[in-house]
Amino acid sequence: LGEKVRGNLVIIGGAEDKKGECKILRKVVELSGGKNSCMVILTTATEHPEEVGREYRRIFERIGVGETNVINIDSRRDAWREDYIKIIKNATCVFFTGGDQLRITSILGGTPVYSILHELYMEGVPIVGTSAGASAMSSPMIVDGNSSDTPRKNTISMAPGLGLLKDVVIDQHFAQRGRIGRLLTAIAQNPYILGIGIDEDTAIIVTPDQCFQVIGSNAVTVLDGRNLSHTNVSELKPNETLALTDVVIHILPNGYGFDLNNRKPLIF
Amino acid sequence: LGEKVRGNLVIIGGAEDKKGECKILRKVVELSGGKNSCMVILTTATEHPEEVGREYRRIFERIGVGETNVINIDSRRDAWREDYIKIIKNATCVFFTGGDQLRITSILGGTPVYSILHELYMEGVPIVGTSAGASAMSSPMIVDGNSSDTPRKNTISMAPGLGLLKDVVIDQHFAQRGRIGRLLTAIAQNPYILGIGIDEDTAIIVTPDQCFQVIGSNAVTVLDGRNLSHTNVSELKPNETLALTDVVIHILPNGYGFDLNNRKPLIF
Repeated sequence: LGEKVRGNLVIIGGAEDKKGECKILRKVVELSGGKNSCMVILTTATEHPEEVGREYRRIFERIGVGETNVINIDSRRDAWREDYIKIIKNATCVFFTGGDQLRITSILGGTPVYSILHELYMEGVPIVGTSAGASAMSSPMIVDGNSSDTPRKNTISMAPGLGLLKDVVIDQHFAQRGRIGRLLTAIAQNPYILGIGIDEDTAIIVTPDQCFQVIGSNAVTVLDGRNLSHTNVSELKPNETLALTDVVIHILPNGYGFDLNNRKPLIF
Repeated sequence: LGEKVRGNLVIIGGAEDKKGECKILRKVVELSGGKNSCMVILTTATEHPEEVGREYRRIFERIGVGETNVINIDSRRDAWREDYIKIIKNATCVFFTGGDQLRITSILGGTPVYSILHELYMEGVPIVGTSAGASAMSSPMIVDGNSSDTPRKNTISMAPGLGLLKDVVIDQHFAQRGRIGRLLTAIAQNPYILGIGIDEDTAIIVTPDQCFQVIGSNAVTVLDGRNLSHTNVSELKPNETLALTDVVIHILPNGYGFDLNNRKPLIF
């Protein structure tokens, strides 16, 4: 509170282009320092760390990153390892792969690596996450939930995320998996929280002034419940259907953005 | 236009319960006059009229309808047949099955059957449609469109519907098929139109005062673009991604409703 955040967050809705123009991943490399960058790829979220790590290393090297280090912290004990900490401290970008967001928070939460991530972010290092790595950025974080369902009280479960972006809840693979119901359920529980649903091959770049810009081939959906006039969420049984009135929705494609402090769409 | 509409519309989002409590279909029978009802089932939308007609006849008879007539008008010529017209004129309820909404409008549009439907509605006869039969109720009508996609200019195609409900566009199988993108695309083209997305096993009952009540096990999504502050729809190429800001969304389950004239949610 009162701290000046200096890094950028790049939050990717999953399935980003890895074969064509690689618009989003090239932007990540640019923000990380291009040829002088030192990228740390954290594979904590995935249960296939070697495969996923190798793929991202190959892509980042192809599109011009300086140095890449794949680090697979897959237990809390690993999150105290001095060799890992040393490498992460030198990063000019930290990249979280997809997988399961609860692995990220349950393995890293409260560890030295967790503290270093926050320090790096304050010092100006971009922190990037795709898919599960995107979900983990915000606090609260959506852990799990049915897609393509009518919003119900039990549609989702939530947990505290990494907290790099606060008072916001992120969802990913958004239009492609029909996830508006679960994001509406998240904001019904506390309309102070802003809902951000990021489509595949689409990302938001959150700058230190707490604005974000959208890049990529699809769109970002923002759900603002500040003027919510009625919800029945507190009265419902778990499987009952949610009522929500007067939620504001914005659909923001490439070239648009959003001011998180003032909750206003931006056109770049 | 000064005319007093007297019938009810029952607009069902498809896949209504036909084996259990049959809450929606029982409500249809009740509105039609119960044991004294004379139900006309129009199978124009489907390419399997015998099978679909037989199924609805059996269900309606089981839940207490007075008389059922299945009429399969599958060409424009049939829509002039005196014997069909006579039966339809005596209906206390007209029920449109699912299938393809464009079959309904292209076969019935401008025919005597079309005029009689409007007359019956004005005289107080309930008109009911499920799935494609639901889409056809409104004008404009969504003909086709990708589900679970980011909204794009070419996400949907529209045509004039039966026009029993005006200045509204209906979509069905709504949450189950992730159709919010296509309904947003529909209202972006003219935000004067209200978007109504009806989930499976869920219906709206539109009463003569132009209010509707929701019944069924899921929810109805209302998209109100009156306060839309920006859209890029007129500038886009067909496959480009839509931008929309400040659309209001309401999620209305069983027991809730909506005042179409004043665009206000209602709690019953």
